[in-house]
Amino acid sequence: MSKRTLPLGHGELLELAMELPTPFYLYDEQAIIDNYRAFKEHFSWAPNFKNYFAVKACPNPTIISALAKEGSGVDCSSLPELLLSEAVGLKGDDIVFTSNDTPANEFKKAYELGAIINLDDITHIQFLENTLGLFPETICFRYNPGPERTGNAIIGNPVEAKYGVTSAQIIDCYRIAKEKGTKRFGLHTMVASNELDGTYIVETARMLFELCVRIRKEAGVAISFIDMGGGIGIPYRPEDSPMDLGFVSREMKKLYDKIIVPSGLDPLTIIFEVGRMITGPYGYLVSKVLHVTEKYKDYVGLDASMADLMRPALYGSYHHITVLGKDREEHDHIYDVTGSLCENNDKFAIDRPLPKVEAGDVVVIHDAGAHGHAMGFNYNAKLRSAEYLLKKDGSIRLIRRAQTYDDYVATLRFDGAPVRI
Amino acid sequence: MSKRTLPLGHGELLELAMELPTPFYLYDEQAIIDNYRAFKEHFSWAPNFKNYFAVKACPNPTIISALAKEGSGVDCSSLPELLLSEAVGLKGDDIVFTSNDTPANEFKKAYELGAIINLDDITHIQFLENTLGLFPETICFRYNPGPERTGNAIIGNPVEAKYGVTSAQIIDCYRIAKEKGTKRFGLHTMVASNELDGTYIVETARMLFELCVRIRKEAGVAISFIDMGGGIGIPYRPEDSPMDLGFVSREMKKLYDKIIVPSGLDPLTIIFEVGRMITGPYGYLVSKVLHVTEKYKDYVGLDASMADLMRPALYGSYHHITVLGKDREEHDHIYDVTGSLCENNDKFAIDRPLPKVEAGDVVVIHDAGAHGHAMGFNYNAKLRSAEYLLKKDGSIRLIRRAQTYDDYVATLRFDGAPVRI
Repeated sequence: MSKRTLPLGHGELLELAMELPTPFYLYDEQAIIDNYRAFKEHFSWAPNFKNYFAVKACPNPTIISALAKEGSGVDCSSLPELLLSEAVGLKGDDIVFTSNDTPANEFKKAYELGAIINLDDITHIQFLENTLGLFPETICFRYNPGPERTGNAIIGNPVEAKYGVTSAQIIDCYRIAKEKGTKRFGLHTMVASNELDGTYIVETARMLFELCVRIRKEAGVAISFIDMGGGIGIPYRPEDSPMDLGFVSREMKKLYDKIIVPSGLDPLTIIFEVGRMITGPYGYLVSKVLHVTEKYKDYVGLDASMADLMRPALYGSYHHITVLGKDREEHDHIYDVTGSLCENNDKFAIDRPLPKVEAGDVVVIHDAGAHGHAMGFNYNAKLRSAEYLLKKDGSIRLIRRAQTYDDYVATLRFDGAPVRI
Repeated sequence: MSKRTLPLGHGELLELAMELPTPFYLYDEQAIIDNYRAFKEHFSWAPNFKNYFAVKACPNPTIISALAKEGSGVDCSSLPELLLSEAVGLKGDDIVFTSNDTPANEFKKAYELGAIINLDDITHIQFLENTLGLFPETICFRYNPGPERTGNAIIGNPVEAKYGVTSAQIIDCYRIAKEKGTKRFGLHTMVASNELDGTYIVETARMLFELCVRIRKEAGVAISFIDMGGGIGIPYRPEDSPMDLGFVSREMKKLYDKIIVPSGLDPLTIIFEVGRMITGPYGYLVSKVLHVTEKYKDYVGLDASMADLMRPALYGSYHHITVLGKDREEHDHIYDVTGSLCENNDKFAIDRPLPKVEAGDVVVIHDAGAHGHAMGFNYNAKLRSAEYLLKKDGSIRLIRRAQTYDDYVATLRFDGAPVRI
């Protein structure tokens, strides 16, 4: 059973929602940093342990920067994500570039920044060399275990996954890279998404540790670092429990001592690309109730919509909802909580027990700190919301302004545009 | 079996894809207009027949303007959609404002433009009056038949739908509006989405015609216009056939003569809010192949992604794919056609038979003219593509420029921003 946290008291949040235009995102800086530190602390035994925050989860430079000050790196997967990371001063070993189906200019920029390039396919070796006119001294390969492993519900079966190098190809990848002069090698995998069962992560570690030994034997290459990917989930549902990271760490240490140490590969750097687990629970979508309606079912209509948070519509995901100032009232009303998009799947919750809700009430949608604002769109010409940070000193700071109509029509305004907007 | 059209020959499209940065959208102006005219022509018997193009399907002002010149109106569902429509010179009876969970400022703008306001809920009557300080002379209500009707796969069961006024509420809605001084009344419903079976539309007409008679009898209100909504599908799959609009029109006419004429409600204006059917088949996403890879399956990696076209990932939708210059070759290779997002569902096609594909090939993704560019997002910091129009005179015109990194970071640049981007 996970605890529901709020970054401020109900009264303070209600005041904030009266003062700022709703909907808006609010992130809790101290909680994010504490969370990051706790994650890192679990792996204090691991050589050069580092997390590379998955930028796609929460691509706000203020948050990336706050994490970077704690020693976090970034995991980028596109050119604009590389540019954002560069803007907050990250470069070199602070960036892992994990992409797939990658265009040449993205590899160029990653190399220019000195990022660790993580190749998704055996053919990308030649493509990268052709693109750069050389082959990097450091290279990583993404491994897809295929039938040797089963995936979880969100990421799907590895055999069906578009990512990574197969078991049959992986040895050749390192042989070829070695021939091309690479000096430092990494091994990456990502076979889970939003997973709460720590065993999954432990088994991933076992798979990579054993693969390191095989690569040493068959390709004559000593892997310097393994990248465990991300995929650590958060307890979205009240009945969910967070992943037991103490267990994961202890079991990984045992496997490290059993597999890596005797093989002579110690010290082997261990890195993660965790995004959701770091910021997810500490981002909140704050929204006002516009209408409460009684149709064939009862509806609470918010001023937020799936344009602000798409996970419930896209994945049917659960997000906990708190009605501010009413949390101690009986949750004896059953509502569908909707947005205003002309899409019937624009619902934040279906058949959710809540206290009696009235127009003007303010709700907080929890666990929106990852893959929340990041996945917003402009469908129905909806404008995207602002992001605020509750800073360590208790002040509230705007860290992304809300979109305006001018932003929405920016790509319609250019010299020679057929219609003047 | 539907015919696959291309707006230009393979050679011309290949040239265009070499000249313009890919991916891009291309719309065929003449085909869209011909398609619109044909749709209208089917209903030439219907009093004051008019289609209100659903702006959300393809919110490009150049396309809206081209349709408006043909007499089309617009169906808007948000403030920015109203502003876009105003920008192309539309107002008054050329706009239907069909929203749900509507904020006050959107009702205000709709009223200011003289738009036909279509109310989604009985409580919105008072909300609208409070908002405007008066009640409009023209009003429309959205009807949800609930258990009296079954929905289709996409729009779901009407009982579960967040939209519209129930059967028990609908008479009261008209009574109250009449008391408030409304002179002209409309009746709207929308119980299908992407439907190809014409019977569905005919049965919707029957439902609305019968409801008009009931409203006349029970509320003493003569409905002036019925709004059949949209929901007419297009044949995405090669084995699909387009809706038989001749059949729909003939059957609707029979019902009109049988139900409306004897009731004294003739002439009853009939309008539609069709979007997808008008532009869907005549918008094309043109993309280059970046990589062809062999993993546990074979993959064709495009420079487009679900950021450009989300329907396959969101709904599992089929979109036909033509490999330019290779359509006469044997389709004897089975590929997953993917984009480059860090999401395994970023696939335009799964297990699709295609000719042998090589890096550098250009593909056309069909039926992207509705809910295509409109549903794009910036996840993974992907930038959205440009839109071009193949004009009636054969020239190609930019009608929306591609997003740039500066667009992507626009909301991060403001006075007092914590990070300089």
